[in-house]
Amino acid sequence: MKLVKVYVTLKDSVLDAQGEAIKSAINTMGYDKISDVHMGKYFELKFANDYQELENDVDKICDDLLANPNIETYRYEITEAE
Amino acid sequence: MKLVKVYVTLKDSVLDAQGEAIKSAINTMGYDKISDVHMGKYFELKFANDYQELENDVDKICDDLLANPNIETYRYEITEAE
Repeated sequence: MKLVKVYVTLKDSVLDAQGEAIKSAINTMGYDKISDVHMGKYFELKFANDYQELENDVDKICDDLLANPNIETYRYEITEAE
Repeated sequence: MKLVKVYVTLKDSVLDAQGEAIKSAINTMGYDKISDVHMGKYFELKFANDYQELENDVDKICDDLLANPNIETYRYEITEAE
């Protein structure tokens, strides 16, 4: 099995309103040493082992489904899993 | 700066309806070698460098704010950032 871990985050130029809200909530909880919060999405995709075109296809899946290329970027890592 | 990367995912015993929907969408796109999809949340928290109680406090922030301990688990890694 191949386990692909995909991280989707907002582009730096896009206001991360959720992150700001979470930062303010953390401040309200009494933690004042936090300087920045960003929120994103995390996906784990499992594929069959004998997958030749894996990287190509993961790129396409991210571009077309998991991330909105207008406002988000993604990165991923491919690992082995049982 | 300390950069804490937090990954929040559903417990294995909880049905991941979003993951199932994404898997089915990926199948519809023509990729049939995908066997499993899980969706979660991803947070990046930046803290001041001289933070003694960092791990303790990140645990509390995750338990009380970022994750729902009834249905979700979290893990995190602490890295250095500029």
